[in-house]
Amino acid sequence: MTNTSPFPTLFVDLDIVRSNISKMNDKVKRNNAEFRPHFKTHQSRQIGRMFRKFGVEGITVSSLKMANYFAEDGWKDITIAFPANILAADYYNSLAAVCQLKTLVISEKVVSQLDAQLQNELGLYIEIDPNYGRSGIPVSDHERIASVIKAIERSENCNLAGFYCHAGHTYRARSKKEVEEIAGKALGQLALLKKVFPEISLCFGDTPSCSVLEDFGPADQISPGNFVFYDWMQVEIGACTPAEIAVTMKCPIIEKFDDREEILIHGGAVHFSKDSAQNKFHTSFGQLITPELSEENYLQNLSQEHGIIHCSPGTYNSFKIGDSVDIYPIHSCLTADVMRGYYSIDGKILDHMNKSVEAF
Amino acid sequence: MTNTSPFPTLFVDLDIVRSNISKMNDKVKRNNAEFRPHFKTHQSRQIGRMFRKFGVEGITVSSLKMANYFAEDGWKDITIAFPANILAADYYNSLAAVCQLKTLVISEKVVSQLDAQLQNELGLYIEIDPNYGRSGIPVSDHERIASVIKAIERSENCNLAGFYCHAGHTYRARSKKEVEEIAGKALGQLALLKKVFPEISLCFGDTPSCSVLEDFGPADQISPGNFVFYDWMQVEIGACTPAEIAVTMKCPIIEKFDDREEILIHGGAVHFSKDSAQNKFHTSFGQLITPELSEENYLQNLSQEHGIIHCSPGTYNSFKIGDSVDIYPIHSCLTADVMRGYYSIDGKILDHMNKSVEAF
Repeated sequence: MTNTSPFPTLFVDLDIVRSNISKMNDKVKRNNAEFRPHFKTHQSRQIGRMFRKFGVEGITVSSLKMANYFAEDGWKDITIAFPANILAADYYNSLAAVCQLKTLVISEKVVSQLDAQLQNELGLYIEIDPNYGRSGIPVSDHERIASVIKAIERSENCNLAGFYCHAGHTYRARSKKEVEEIAGKALGQLALLKKVFPEISLCFGDTPSCSVLEDFGPADQISPGNFVFYDWMQVEIGACTPAEIAVTMKCPIIEKFDDREEILIHGGAVHFSKDSAQNKFHTSFGQLITPELSEENYLQNLSQEHGIIHCSPGTYNSFKIGDSVDIYPIHSCLTADVMRGYYSIDGKILDHMNKSVEAF
Repeated sequence: MTNTSPFPTLFVDLDIVRSNISKMNDKVKRNNAEFRPHFKTHQSRQIGRMFRKFGVEGITVSSLKMANYFAEDGWKDITIAFPANILAADYYNSLAAVCQLKTLVISEKVVSQLDAQLQNELGLYIEIDPNYGRSGIPVSDHERIASVIKAIERSENCNLAGFYCHAGHTYRARSKKEVEEIAGKALGQLALLKKVFPEISLCFGDTPSCSVLEDFGPADQISPGNFVFYDWMQVEIGACTPAEIAVTMKCPIIEKFDDREEILIHGGAVHFSKDSAQNKFHTSFGQLITPELSEENYLQNLSQEHGIIHCSPGTYNSFKIGDSVDIYPIHSCLTADVMRGYYSIDGKILDHMNKSVEAF
């Protein structure tokens, strides 16, 4: 594949990446917090290294495999922001031997079952659920939280890293105001939690909250991930502007269907992922980039290799078979995950974990 | 990764694969048709070779990359069932030098633009749209079809391979009867087309149609793909029974949430893909395998690494943290695409294109 490939290609603008990192880093510093960015979006050692220039030392990842991938690139302080898997104690032991490893925990049971299998010190964040409903102890259940703290204190090989909270329900917002409301409510409840447990540090940070809020309230550590690239879903949420999106898919136009004014591109679920976002007009799998971005121009449907673009008559007529279109992905984390690599604007190839290492 | 991996693992039962191939092959033979199976589902050389024992010589794929992957394994007669990309002429030329290559075409314009760049003979199927609405010339537009036939006849390096028709709207069916209606209507219109162009052979074959119909009517060649594995979407459609599904995901149980009787597994969009299927009760990302399969037990939500299982109280209580669950994927093609490899039931590792070759 070259950067003039006739096949779907994922481009990353490293200047935008640098600017996104810089802005978020500044905001974290203004909040006197520690920046522990999530690397699950880019999954790239080369992009990961860009954070070092901003003084970042602690990072966040979503799996043991990813922790291993970045530990091999010299990162020494890694949080796996996923609840501990008691079947994987051997993997925690190996990795905790070479870096300061932390992961999440929700129940006393897992603390004790994990502790019994550990040979090396493992940091445990207690995962707090701010009414998102995916995972964690409900933020208001101080009693359960206290008993997990005690279980960690009783353990031999675990230490308490803090509270970890992902307010993923901000993804349901469709305006800055809605993000502020959801994030504000979550941070309010976390502030109450911190009053009860003032010594315990709090790691917080979904991309919508961290992008929209200026004040991170009770949070001591900030760990957003998606902001490094952003994507069209974040525009819909109100978390970024289109100019802040660092990744674009370039896809060839294969055919045009005059009767329905739709364009067939090579670019399907194996390139974009099958994720979508809904706004009040439609469900979209990506946003067509045109001089004036429009609700009318979007990726309407995806099958394995096919993408169908819905567009305005003017946009339809401006393209011909053999041209390429540029598209903002709906969800850059998953698009990068299936594309497994990037081109920088000046044609360099950047790594992605999925192409670089074997799964274990 | 071993087959006792504590991480999400994709298993394939090769006995079921063999049986699925055998049943479809028998049906194709009874119809006096040629079996040209689609390999986009398994994307595996080892699974591809299983078809050779049934006398299969011609295969179908969904991309040039995939054509190349299977050509390197000795397949000599390959259809890329995707409309020709005029930017990729060099790739068609290289591949057509080592195998009988065919692809799809929809417009005269593409025939002439492609022809001008070809050095080697390329077979062209005219893609016919049976009111699915994704791609192709509407099945009743005999005039446009005739003009594309003439364009191919006028060309220097293209030959007419036939008509190619994918009735993808059978995926909207939710019973055998609905599949029969949609497929029957499509085949009826194709029979009319064949009356006008009796000399031109017809390749037909989505998995729901080929699984449900006994009589393939006017079709001369049959090219389904998904049937090799099937999946839970095909059960919902009415195209297979659960016992015919050849692939299962094994995922560890990370946590249990007593208050909402939901189970957290390691197994997210990067393992299953983000595809889903809707039935009258809910949207599902996968079906939990329990002794008695139940509408109540399914993968309710996916994020990047998290899966949330909704289940009945009895099922909830039958599992503990550290157990594994087996899940039928909703869409096996995309699950295989993101998992990039298989374990056979007896622990052998099987290849998948995404792990075996570099993209080009």
